[in-house]
Amino acid sequence: MATITGPIDVSALRARLDRATAAAEQAGVDALLISPGSDLRYLIGAGGDSFERLTCLALPVGGTPRLVVPKLEQPGYAAIPTDELGVEVVTWVDGEDPYALVKAALKGERTAVADMMPALHTIKLGQAIGGAQSLAGPIIRELRMRKDAAEIDALRKAGQAIDRVHARMGEFLRVGRTEREVAKDIADAIVEEGHTVADFVIVGSGPNGASPHHRDSERVVQAGEVVVIDIGGPVAEGYNSDSTRTYVMGEPTHDDVRETYAVLQAAQKAAVEAVKPGVTCEEIDAVARKVITDAGFGEYFVHRTGHGIGLDVHEEPYIVSGNPLPLEAGMAFSVEPGIYLPGRWGARIEDIVVATPDGVESFNNRPHELVVL
Amino acid sequence: MATITGPIDVSALRARLDRATAAAEQAGVDALLISPGSDLRYLIGAGGDSFERLTCLALPVGGTPRLVVPKLEQPGYAAIPTDELGVEVVTWVDGEDPYALVKAALKGERTAVADMMPALHTIKLGQAIGGAQSLAGPIIRELRMRKDAAEIDALRKAGQAIDRVHARMGEFLRVGRTEREVAKDIADAIVEEGHTVADFVIVGSGPNGASPHHRDSERVVQAGEVVVIDIGGPVAEGYNSDSTRTYVMGEPTHDDVRETYAVLQAAQKAAVEAVKPGVTCEEIDAVARKVITDAGFGEYFVHRTGHGIGLDVHEEPYIVSGNPLPLEAGMAFSVEPGIYLPGRWGARIEDIVVATPDGVESFNNRPHELVVL
Repeated sequence: MATITGPIDVSALRARLDRATAAAEQAGVDALLISPGSDLRYLIGAGGDSFERLTCLALPVGGTPRLVVPKLEQPGYAAIPTDELGVEVVTWVDGEDPYALVKAALKGERTAVADMMPALHTIKLGQAIGGAQSLAGPIIRELRMRKDAAEIDALRKAGQAIDRVHARMGEFLRVGRTEREVAKDIADAIVEEGHTVADFVIVGSGPNGASPHHRDSERVVQAGEVVVIDIGGPVAEGYNSDSTRTYVMGEPTHDDVRETYAVLQAAQKAAVEAVKPGVTCEEIDAVARKVITDAGFGEYFVHRTGHGIGLDVHEEPYIVSGNPLPLEAGMAFSVEPGIYLPGRWGARIEDIVVATPDGVESFNNRPHELVVL
Repeated sequence: MATITGPIDVSALRARLDRATAAAEQAGVDALLISPGSDLRYLIGAGGDSFERLTCLALPVGGTPRLVVPKLEQPGYAAIPTDELGVEVVTWVDGEDPYALVKAALKGERTAVADMMPALHTIKLGQAIGGAQSLAGPIIRELRMRKDAAEIDALRKAGQAIDRVHARMGEFLRVGRTEREVAKDIADAIVEEGHTVADFVIVGSGPNGASPHHRDSERVVQAGEVVVIDIGGPVAEGYNSDSTRTYVMGEPTHDDVRETYAVLQAAQKAAVEAVKPGVTCEEIDAVARKVITDAGFGEYFVHRTGHGIGLDVHEEPYIVSGNPLPLEAGMAFSVEPGIYLPGRWGARIEDIVVATPDGVESFNNRPHELVVL
């Protein structure tokens, strides 16, 4: 059922709806079609979670916004001040055609659909409406990737919460425990320290740390091993934390750990310090990558340097080669280079940062050194 | 990261890939394009969980299956015997164009995309490939909705596991506790009794029970209240449980509870007993609805009677008005009528059943009476 984004600020939501419609018009589309997810949460304060039954917010240029929602899911939107937002709510029951209800709200056939809309609805809406479909993501992201003060406050709060979990890592991460046992305790701590849920917990010990998206396993943590801990979740406002630190269980077994880690730490620091308005996303990626490549580890840094964060853990702007977007104040994203030595060990350092008018603020402030536990 | 469906039965998966491609040819499309999710898990044994980076299994008619996967997510597919399955694995890194890698595997432009593929990929694949897109769901569901013996075993196991949780309800559901406290204990029990995770826990007390998809809240359960408990999750094989029972905390406060509940119980029983090969999905829905409508509660039964279940909690076949699909042996689905009296109380009874060659087997076998706690 729909979750509420903290207190509803009606005027802020109205402004978002107006800006979204204006951006749609400027992009040459007749309507935005938004399915459940963080785009919907951003626009009306409730994200919903429907899959096979269509829930869709239609935002027609020059028309009345319409929320088409299954009748049985309507109670989940009860807290949304749809009247004050000027949103018409139209319910449907099983056996009715919800796609026609969306079409009836439109003033033209060119639609832009939410990036996460399932093909099930994308294709049926396309058939019902008939016109060309494009993605709403590039339109909505222009709003969502520029965080306002309340959003930055929520991200800062999330960052402080996850920092408190990392500060307690010695309670959880100990030699002789399985990754899964460690992960379970961390998940509990993520909630204890102020998140609504533990969205993800990566505990990558020894060779598992060399797989960037490993989660956890029954592997037992050994003395001398490097362990990558990448954790996060949303706070009540819906905004997410995401922070990685790399730990070592006493003196590292492998003799290349300290020297290699120093390269990573320098790369991460250089990339964070390069953040300011006007610098492009790909330039930030290049800063981190150059330090790592110059030290001879380029082939072991197998992912982009970072991703935007907000209501989604991964959103625009992506800090990646090929993204020429210039940073602006209010853009928040991760800076998380890694070095992964297959079959041996891996390391990653990740902070969430925001570009400020004159530079950068980091929401994560735990020590960046290899932490010996 | 990709999760594995228990032990990999290579010959079973090869047969599924072959049948999927044959069904695609018969449907007049040149390829199936399958994104992470249960369709992918059904076909290769790993479901993946990527969102914004494209992971896609291309199944071209008359060509070699190709799994396009981000390099950093490749380790999650390490347990899949792709060579034995005849699946070519092609990795990509950030900055490369994964859509072109899919297109290169195809022998024609008419594609059918997985129902749950995000529009982000649906539309970019459509642009890269150029031909008409349709939904793979109607093709894949022809395979997935006819469960084989191993799948039925897994669903039976899941049903027994959730029955054990309902059997323990008196431990969790007590007057004076909040719905959330009750839900947390139930979630723990769902895992203790053999599920890998607690996928959903609905605790709808008093008026909250009248909202069919209410989850839980800080509301305190009161003496005399009716409480709807709808719970489930997957077992290790990936197949799901989903069962609802309605409880009352001592003698019901409202004087219409027992009589109304008796109508619901009769409706659910009649619908289960109507299940056999050849009867249509809409006929099963009509059986339940007629009992409830004849008793004067038709307007308070606001959803379909059931949904298929397997690797997804909700999948084909849907037991709903307008679905003329005749049942066949091996089709598994919920039978879950409800009566919802807004602002007062609600009730629902849900069993997962499978059509057998000569009738029906129920995987849920807890008492169907209103359970007094």
